[in-house]
Amino acid sequence: MDYQAILEAIRDEITPHLHKGKVADYIPALASVPKGKFAMTITLESGEQFSVGEHAERFSIQSISKVFTFTLALGHYGRRLYKRVGVEPSGNPFNSLVQLEYEHGIPRNPFINAGAIAVTDALVSYYKDEYRALEAILDFIRQISGEAGITFDHEVANSEMEHGDRNLALARLMKSFGNFDNEVLSTVKTYFKHCAVTMSTDELSRAMLYLAFGGIDPVSGRKFATPSQAKRINAVMLTCGHYDASGEFAYHVGLPAKSGVGGGIVAVVPGRLSLAVWSPALNKHGNSYAGTLALEKFTTKTGLSIF
Amino acid sequence: MDYQAILEAIRDEITPHLHKGKVADYIPALASVPKGKFAMTITLESGEQFSVGEHAERFSIQSISKVFTFTLALGHYGRRLYKRVGVEPSGNPFNSLVQLEYEHGIPRNPFINAGAIAVTDALVSYYKDEYRALEAILDFIRQISGEAGITFDHEVANSEMEHGDRNLALARLMKSFGNFDNEVLSTVKTYFKHCAVTMSTDELSRAMLYLAFGGIDPVSGRKFATPSQAKRINAVMLTCGHYDASGEFAYHVGLPAKSGVGGGIVAVVPGRLSLAVWSPALNKHGNSYAGTLALEKFTTKTGLSIF
Amino acid sequence: MDYQAILEAIRDEITPHLHKGKVADYIPALASVPKGKFAMTITLESGEQFSVGEHAERFSIQSISKVFTFTLALGHYGRRLYKRVGVEPSGNPFNSLVQLEYEHGIPRNPFINAGAIAVTDALVSYYKDEYRALEAILDFIRQISGEAGITFDHEVANSEMEHGDRNLALARLMKSFGNFDNEVLSTVKTYFKHCAVTMSTDELSRAMLYLAFGGIDPVSGRKFATPSQAKRINAVMLTCGHYDASGEFAYHVGLPAKSGVGGGIVAVVPGRLSLAVWSPALNKHGNSYAGTLALEKFTTKTGLSIF
Amino acid sequence: MDYQAILEAIRDEITPHLHKGKVADYIPALASVPKGKFAMTITLESGEQFSVGEHAERFSIQSISKVFTFTLALGHYGRRLYKRVGVEPSGNPFNSLVQLEYEHGIPRNPFINAGAIAVTDALVSYYKDEYRALEAILDFIRQISGEAGITFDHEVANSEMEHGDRNLALARLMKSFGNFDNEVLSTVKTYFKHCAVTMSTDELSRAMLYLAFGGIDPVSGRKFATPSQAKRINAVMLTCGHYDASGEFAYHVGLPAKSGVGGGIVAVVPGRLSLAVWSPALNKHGNSYAGTLALEKFTTKTGLSIF
Repeated sequence: MDYQAILEAIRDEITPHLHKGKVADYIPALASVPKGKFAMTITLESGEQFSVGEHAERFSIQSISKVFTFTLALGHYGRRLYKRVGVEPSGNPFNSLVQLEYEHGIPRNPFINAGAIAVTDALVSYYKDEYRALEAILDFIRQISGEAGITFDHEVANSEMEHGDRNLALARLMKSFGNFDNEVLSTVKTYFKHCAVTMSTDELSRAMLYLAFGGIDPVSGRKFATPSQAKRINAVMLTCGHYDASGEFAYHVGLPAKSGVGGGIVAVVPGRLSLAVWSPALNKHGNSYAGTLALEKFTTKTGLSIF
Repeated sequence: MDYQAILEAIRDEITPHLHKGKVADYIPALASVPKGKFAMTITLESGEQFSVGEHAERFSIQSISKVFTFTLALGHYGRRLYKRVGVEPSGNPFNSLVQLEYEHGIPRNPFINAGAIAVTDALVSYYKDEYRALEAILDFIRQISGEAGITFDHEVANSEMEHGDRNLALARLMKSFGNFDNEVLSTVKTYFKHCAVTMSTDELSRAMLYLAFGGIDPVSGRKFATPSQAKRINAVMLTCGHYDASGEFAYHVGLPAKSGVGGGIVAVVPGRLSLAVWSPALNKHGNSYAGTLALEKFTTKTGLSIF
Repeated sequence: MDYQAILEAIRDEITPHLHKGKVADYIPALASVPKGKFAMTITLESGEQFSVGEHAERFSIQSISKVFTFTLALGHYGRRLYKRVGVEPSGNPFNSLVQLEYEHGIPRNPFINAGAIAVTDALVSYYKDEYRALEAILDFIRQISGEAGITFDHEVANSEMEHGDRNLALARLMKSFGNFDNEVLSTVKTYFKHCAVTMSTDELSRAMLYLAFGGIDPVSGRKFATPSQAKRINAVMLTCGHYDASGEFAYHVGLPAKSGVGGGIVAVVPGRLSLAVWSPALNKHGNSYAGTLALEKFTTKTGLSIF
Repeated sequence: MDYQAILEAIRDEITPHLHKGKVADYIPALASVPKGKFAMTITLESGEQFSVGEHAERFSIQSISKVFTFTLALGHYGRRLYKRVGVEPSGNPFNSLVQLEYEHGIPRNPFINAGAIAVTDALVSYYKDEYRALEAILDFIRQISGEAGITFDHEVANSEMEHGDRNLALARLMKSFGNFDNEVLSTVKTYFKHCAVTMSTDELSRAMLYLAFGGIDPVSGRKFATPSQAKRINAVMLTCGHYDASGEFAYHVGLPAKSGVGGGIVAVVPGRLSLAVWSPALNKHGNSYAGTLALEKFTTKTGLSIF
């Protein structure tokens, strides 16, 4: 398959749509990103990459970081992690706090905010303090992407913290149910920091390769998850990866994928390749408008949907 | 692949587990089915079948019928159907009525009871009355399975109706929001009737073949859905097919599938084959205990998961 | 106290406000009542009445009938009635169905719709069928008011039934929890019929006298409730009598009272007198706009608040 | 009326019930209070007091402090306070966080935790910082009770803070809706401190006298609230003063009253007297078991119910 030609065709078709939707504006640091940006990268088993657009430009990965922290925590805790966070779709956003209260402080899955905060708390416990936990998360992302220079944006993290009351409420509620071990403020700050990691589509696509190949990076041969864990992460991405539009996304794109409000989406074609796309304007569900469309075009053009 | 050998190995491994779980007992007609039953059938593109256990014995398909009514209604209404029923996971059972009220009478997806009742109502409207609608549903099932003798169990349908107050409440609530066109009692009765259809795993597996092949039955060449509709139905089965354990099922089995409280589960391997399994005892989520395990063993042994 | 002068002063002060608010329009039969109407009647221990406005004109008493059915059912069932309906404020309208589901089909109090329907069902059971139950309710109202000619408006009752899906959903939900004994449709119809009773403020004020005097009508000496039951009914009127504005009403008026969407409000000053007021235009909480204001002026002018 | 004789009769009748119920045990500092304690005090317009039991022994007033902070904030903000907290019953405990989320961070009334925390936040804003706010609250309680030595129990306040995650979650949620002005931790700490005030029934009964007499302390002649505010506070006590048993309490006792989990209850007979009762064991709703019974006996013996 001529992936470069496919990417270029997608870029051409997507260009008229780049200004549709709305850039995330709940914090100033994200609101200032210009709308017209687009990038898309495919990484094959060999590590070979195909890219279009601003594929080397870093952006805020936001919720995509939840895939990485989930992998890392699953590696340390195994099935014990499911005592703290479930793997079922949530029917969000409606019941955010409601559901968490109804289900006694156990978040539905690791990709809703409460779940990702619980996973972060588990990592802080494992690494004994929040600094080492953050360092381990960053180190993990650097290893899976092969990019030693990846770090987070302090301004974004601080801005999130200033507007972080709802997330702090979720953490407090979990603590009131006994599902939180560490100090609330510093743990939620750690959560905001790993959400504020910046990466390019080249880096993100490369970082997802292990999930397309049963947990093992086919380039380096390093194992980042067991086959069973990789399958689990892919299943959770498919059923819970796109907020309240996970069902819609499963149909239109048909690939395990995770989006972030920074406009990035990562996806995998199991056994074949990994992808990343970026376009900052979001649809009403908080997923990249043009990014979703680009992935849909990708599966249509290549027939690589899992369904 | 030696499917017959695989099925026999599964049967042997599953036998010790056949008495685990609990047969559905909310109506007497279902409660009387003995626990130890097991059957499993695979159907290939050619129509060739491999079976083990009581594969010719009919049982109550229950919620599996929702796959067929959804297909039929999608064929008649196309995208207009989504005005009446969504395609997102629901986070059930917690919020059944709550969610329906919060979301103004539009059920989350066609596989929760409210959604399947709304689909039935749409079919009653399309066929003008409930008798013709039921006849059309039965006729559709007969065509996709190639079995002219398939019908429903009156005793089960009547028994459901006697215990049907919650479903009648859901229908009334939808009507209060304007999302219900026909007479409530007779429409819900029609819903119970198609849930009371009885089929064997041989018949069910055969009936699902069109969903493994883009909407076209590869044996007869007849088209029962567009490729896009088939993809949609598979996506909804994967994200919403197993009540409150859809995420768990997506991970353990990794195939689009739909279960019923009669103990049946149907599944497809896109582009390859369709399956049906039956064992009446259910796990705590209402899915066949041994059936789920059998499908999990199938994907493990064959590597045919979509993830 | 010169009650006639007080009533006339209230009427004069209220006149500029008679067109504020909005007449109930969820059924045509109520929507056609003209806005400018006003009537108010006070009844003393001796039976002496003071009135202003259209005090002999009958209007739809609607939810005020819930006071009478609650009294009647309490007489027949005593404390056993509380197994079927509570006496706590509900925090309506938000959680109508939600709360009923969460609390396993037991309505919060007899003045929300679900509660009044449960009370009606209890009366249908007591009187063996819905016709005798309705006859007994009408008979009770005729006795407490001393007006043999009181009946209900068929057109209003039928119109309610045509728009009654939400109430039917509530009844079905209660039935699914085992808190409903009789046929849903005919019982809800009976409920709509007693809500469609028409009375004037003269009749309503007279009918409430027993609640101002410990359950005994001071004029006839007949006992319609025990002192403890009368206290209970007054307490429920104070805490639950005005939908989602019961707290507001308790403060502004400070009397046990019950309103209906027909624009009527009844109230009692324990040990002193009973009142009724009518003005069809409603405030945003569904209580008579001018009627609430008139009662507030009454307690301000007379100092007869219970607080 | 011979109040002393009435109190002594109540004490004799209540004695067999003193060990029923369960002392609050969510924090160690409260759990250690022995069960058998009982005290009751009546204060007349003249300031004359009648007491039985351990009427000079101080105990943790807990939620009773909400009456005092509500009065103080109402004095400073007037009707503007209702932009931050409502006056309607809540249907608690079910919907605590649910309701707060549904109603956009505006608590239902000042006597549920969220409402009392919002009132505390308003006082912190008014007094510029939490120390001055706490000092003002204590000063207000000292003035209305005429006891300069009243203060709070540090151990109880610290213990509450250690188990305060749910209250911190409520505060955070309000902050996320913009209904919180000050630092969350220190404001909630201030809330816990005023809940940890210790007073005897003699002091509490005396402190409530202004609410029995239209806001003016009849002994000193000092005005602590307007007549309208006093009526409002009494109305809120009647409809919302006893958690999820406010309706039950309104019926059984029939007086505006407020309870605390320390086992205290305060009540007023408008225009007549104020009361306080204490017995630490609580019923299932969190109200003093024997205290509720004692108040019920008081209204039965004296006929002083408002209904």
